[in-house]
Amino acid sequence: MRLLVDAELEALIESEVENGAGQVAELCGTVLLAGGKRLRPLLILLAHEIAGGSSDDDIIPLALAFELIHTATLVHDDINDEASQRRGVDTIHTRVGIPKAVIAGDWLFVQGFGLGGIYEEHIVRIMAQCCANIAVSEFDQLDHVLNLATSPEDYLGIVRGKTAGPFSAGCHAAGLVAGLSDEQASALQRFGMELGIAFQLVDDLLDLRGDERMGKPRGADVIEGKMTLPLIHALTLSHGEERLRLAHIIENFHDGLFDELMSLLNYSQSLQYADILVRTHLERALNELDSFPDSDAKSLMLHITDYVMNRHL
Amino acid sequence: MRLLVDAELEALIESEVENGAGQVAELCGTVLLAGGKRLRPLLILLAHEIAGGSSDDDIIPLALAFELIHTATLVHDDINDEASQRRGVDTIHTRVGIPKAVIAGDWLFVQGFGLGGIYEEHIVRIMAQCCANIAVSEFDQLDHVLNLATSPEDYLGIVRGKTAGPFSAGCHAAGLVAGLSDEQASALQRFGMELGIAFQLVDDLLDLRGDERMGKPRGADVIEGKMTLPLIHALTLSHGEERLRLAHIIENFHDGLFDELMSLLNYSQSLQYADILVRTHLERALNELDSFPDSDAKSLMLHITDYVMNRHL
Repeated sequence: MRLLVDAELEALIESEVENGAGQVAELCGTVLLAGGKRLRPLLILLAHEIAGGSSDDDIIPLALAFELIHTATLVHDDINDEASQRRGVDTIHTRVGIPKAVIAGDWLFVQGFGLGGIYEEHIVRIMAQCCANIAVSEFDQLDHVLNLATSPEDYLGIVRGKTAGPFSAGCHAAGLVAGLSDEQASALQRFGMELGIAFQLVDDLLDLRGDERMGKPRGADVIEGKMTLPLIHALTLSHGEERLRLAHIIENFHDGLFDELMSLLNYSQSLQYADILVRTHLERALNELDSFPDSDAKSLMLHITDYVMNRHL
Repeated sequence: MRLLVDAELEALIESEVENGAGQVAELCGTVLLAGGKRLRPLLILLAHEIAGGSSDDDIIPLALAFELIHTATLVHDDINDEASQRRGVDTIHTRVGIPKAVIAGDWLFVQGFGLGGIYEEHIVRIMAQCCANIAVSEFDQLDHVLNLATSPEDYLGIVRGKTAGPFSAGCHAAGLVAGLSDEQASALQRFGMELGIAFQLVDDLLDLRGDERMGKPRGADVIEGKMTLPLIHALTLSHGEERLRLAHIIENFHDGLFDELMSLLNYSQSLQYADILVRTHLERALNELDSFPDSDAKSLMLHITDYVMNRHL
């Protein structure tokens, strides 16, 4: 199924190159086709299937649209984060400069919306609302960089918009395309949201524990000033000298401070706290699938939730 | 009619601010609502009307979508051009930095596609193809910065994609929404393309002759290394010492060289050449309207073509 997504994306880039999009399509192709877990399109295809959707052809454009839009946000995020690598290859702005990278991201957005636009109005509305929420949450995240007063609620608001929202919107829309009622499709919407929150929490943990996140050094989030849940939790629990030291480390982080940061996080059991939240959100995600009959697609969705939980073990 | 567009855009921003898009919507509103000629949405409304469209309600979302997408490209272009002012106000990146400006542009794109997504597949396809062409042409334009071998054909290719394409796609789509046949709608498509080319040529001339382009110094295009038609024409016609001097001036342009540049352009009659092309393309645009019956809307469209021709006089 992942191979199907890869093949479709490859065909799209090839046909765009042929249609005269040349350099911009090729450049976007290098990032789009460099790998990536394809979690979003896979979940969309599976959600469509467990919802009783009959033909993959009905849902493939939507699955690709979400992957294209996801990649567009990565290209623009990488500019903003000054990241040098993505999916194991050099980022676009590193190779061709910021102006072309901004436009390349726009091109990916446009391809995504072009594909999504074949669906009915309510599906397009879900996509557009999801993308608008990503932008709003990214603003919010920038405003919280190195803001040590960031609360768990602030954090969850950002995660819901930026990471979990696309999982949620994709599964929701897939259910509707398959013909589910609003109520049944809402279960898939909640499934996507809970899974997405767990996914982000695991990502936070991977930044600290070791990493399958291609091309990123450990502590990359801390270097960028991102207030991840383990840091927020530790700051909330620490007092006096310890909190001052923790704040100093976060504000002036470099790899030489990594071990000291980890010992402070261990002291407040902040990684364990995040672990527990991962499990909570994954359990809630699984509960939402209860009402769907057993099937190969459902087994695969359970498999993906397992993967989200275990990719840092 | 322009007031209608302004009011609709204002209502959209207000409702987005209320719906929680807060800072990003407000920031985008400052540029979106700072004025602007609204040429694209006006042409779309008028094209719909001369094509026999009955209700403005059918076409307003499309008109707004094109204005939102146009503004999105301006926000991203201004980052890439390091422009400090747009529509008489400070550019977004000047006020809040590049990261937020990238995201603000994305938000505007998304709003545009959200509105456009209510139309049928073939309309969305026209929009998406138009936006993809903008990106391709912007790449092309960046590759031609200070490229003194840029040909008139290179130039026209870029203009067709970046400036004229949206005029063309908007008028084309408006005709189809109004129920025209493909053949009739193609006349509007060609009208938009010819008008758009004329519009860009006039813009090139305004850069050199004096300017209603808010907040831009004279010769701004030359400073940015943009190869506009008058420069391309002059480089083509000049020889020997004169061409070397012209090339030197273009490559090292600053306002102190303005008078010398103008005298070289006058010598090769390059502004006059561009003037003639403006008239040619406007005449072709007008010819495309011949098949539509006389009406108030048609008079207004003729008025807009006049405006395009005369805004530099």
